[in-house]
Amino acid sequence: MSKYWSEVAKKIDPYVPGEQPQDKRYIKLNTNENPYPPSPKVLAAINQVTTETLRLYPDPECRELRACIAEYHGLTKEQVFVGNGSDEVLAFCFQAFFNPGTPILFPDISYSFYPVYAKLYNIDYKLIPLEDDFSLAWDKFCSPNGGVIFPNPNAPTGRYMPLEAVETILEKNIDQVVIVDEAYIDFGGQSAVKFINRYPNLLVVQTLSKSRSLAGLRVGLAIGHKDLIEGLERVKNSINSYTLDRAAMAGAEAAFKDEAYFQTTRNMIMATREKTIVDLQRLGFTVIPSLANFIFISHSRVLAADIYQQLREEGILVRYFNKPRINNFLRVSIGNDREMKSLVEQLTTIVR
Amino acid sequence: MSKYWSEVAKKIDPYVPGEQPQDKRYIKLNTNENPYPPSPKVLAAINQVTTETLRLYPDPECRELRACIAEYHGLTKEQVFVGNGSDEVLAFCFQAFFNPGTPILFPDISYSFYPVYAKLYNIDYKLIPLEDDFSLAWDKFCSPNGGVIFPNPNAPTGRYMPLEAVETILEKNIDQVVIVDEAYIDFGGQSAVKFINRYPNLLVVQTLSKSRSLAGLRVGLAIGHKDLIEGLERVKNSINSYTLDRAAMAGAEAAFKDEAYFQTTRNMIMATREKTIVDLQRLGFTVIPSLANFIFISHSRVLAADIYQQLREEGILVRYFNKPRINNFLRVSIGNDREMKSLVEQLTTIVR
Repeated sequence: MSKYWSEVAKKIDPYVPGEQPQDKRYIKLNTNENPYPPSPKVLAAINQVTTETLRLYPDPECRELRACIAEYHGLTKEQVFVGNGSDEVLAFCFQAFFNPGTPILFPDISYSFYPVYAKLYNIDYKLIPLEDDFSLAWDKFCSPNGGVIFPNPNAPTGRYMPLEAVETILEKNIDQVVIVDEAYIDFGGQSAVKFINRYPNLLVVQTLSKSRSLAGLRVGLAIGHKDLIEGLERVKNSINSYTLDRAAMAGAEAAFKDEAYFQTTRNMIMATREKTIVDLQRLGFTVIPSLANFIFISHSRVLAADIYQQLREEGILVRYFNKPRINNFLRVSIGNDREMKSLVEQLTTIVR
Repeated sequence: MSKYWSEVAKKIDPYVPGEQPQDKRYIKLNTNENPYPPSPKVLAAINQVTTETLRLYPDPECRELRACIAEYHGLTKEQVFVGNGSDEVLAFCFQAFFNPGTPILFPDISYSFYPVYAKLYNIDYKLIPLEDDFSLAWDKFCSPNGGVIFPNPNAPTGRYMPLEAVETILEKNIDQVVIVDEAYIDFGGQSAVKFINRYPNLLVVQTLSKSRSLAGLRVGLAIGHKDLIEGLERVKNSINSYTLDRAAMAGAEAAFKDEAYFQTTRNMIMATREKTIVDLQRLGFTVIPSLANFIFISHSRVLAADIYQQLREEGILVRYFNKPRINNFLRVSIGNDREMKSLVEQLTTIVR
């Protein structure tokens, strides 16, 4: 604590990302990265960036990339916002749509960045408890509120909420903004983007870090009514006119244009997930139903904290959250088949 | 205005960057970009980024880049913060060090993003009028305040404040954070970085967009006491853990490592500036003394607004601010010799 810090800097409680260890090479199943590299077309596009363009500011409105994403979804670029990863986009959302006063609603077990944003912007919130099976009951999101946000599929559980339930939440909260955080939607769920032209209160947030294998490039996006997008632009343009550099914009556009590669790799991840689930259930693990690129698991006899530690010693990183209700679970990212085979082998030894 | 916008989104007054026109090719002297490309080593470094690393999150602490910049200045990496352009770094500074209540101080004619940040974060401010010659009188920054920020050299005037005056401001405000915004310091001024180990209240903000020719890559930095850097990290980690992508970090590091290229290009720009000043004075222009990569000029007979318009029609973009005290001035970025020759030729016709 420093006397020079503002009241805000003193009170905030920053997010701690999953570790990026430097000490040795791990099988990294702790930050939901994609085991497959991005489309080769992404790198080709980045390599098209020249020193002549690097000296010039990028387009502050990111028109080409927004138009490309809009076309992908059959929308207009005025319905698309892009930013420096979905974390930045979510931060801008909290500032653009939520107020101090009436609490916003989000699940008690959810993306742990939400309470961080809330504290930063002085937004009150009410935690909605998940059901015992970690599902999200839509009717609990219909009490008076200042806005709603939830991931679908949820993190760190991986559970997906059917679109009919999402639509009911949109209908029942038509006077508030409802943010559906779809970081993991491409691994088997259906996107709420199909509701964009029907609900002016809907904002869908997505990322290229997971299903498009671009965690290292920092591109996220929001899709919604043009008025919501304008609200996000206003906040962005009060902070930083150019949040996406030329390499990121070029790479992101190339990723959206290689649909075949996208379909192939996400299908491979889903196939590996299903195979891994069967293997783990055989070892006595409970696996929460997942439509994400990770699974949330708990063992009947061995404590999650112990498994976490033993895996780490064997060179496999997974994520352990020491929090109420989930402190006997591990979140395991879906790697490639070889990585998951190593995981299952180690777990076989650990739970024997 | 939308009913879904927060009170913050409604009240803010976003910054409008210099235009990046798409209609035709201009000689662009309007956004202080560098006329020379970045070091070829920057592109080589970016091209080292592989698809295998792009799928992985970058280092959220940016350790390598911070260590590289720290070494450049003979400091430690704990004294260096890096972000997505100096605009983002400045936004974080306002949030990390300034409070509502006691007004912060900045010049009335200055970087027009400062009041935007202040409005966003609800920070009160008091404008300190520049002297008639656009210089900044240090004694006016010594009244009770909640913090101080000024560019050195100032923008859009280009006027430099000698380091002795900067030091006096630091001494007289030892209980508040003093931010010296050195976006243009590499074009002839002396950096306040030399005071870092002496004044715990000093934060120097710089950018790679100007003197390192990397506007398209979005990298800015802050240098200060480790407690101030920690304050910035806290804010950053409450918004976005990874603000710099892998291409930006690799390119920025390469730029800092090519000192010879940096010296050559900045010297070329300064030489062109001095030559242009002589040419313009010959045409009857008043040129404010500049240690930046731009000059601030006014003509004795022809209105700045008219010159702006006529230059635009001839394919030359400069920046015109329709604001009190400076509405008969133009800010002209220093291009290469060929571009400045075209400018002088056009101006010769216009003021004839």
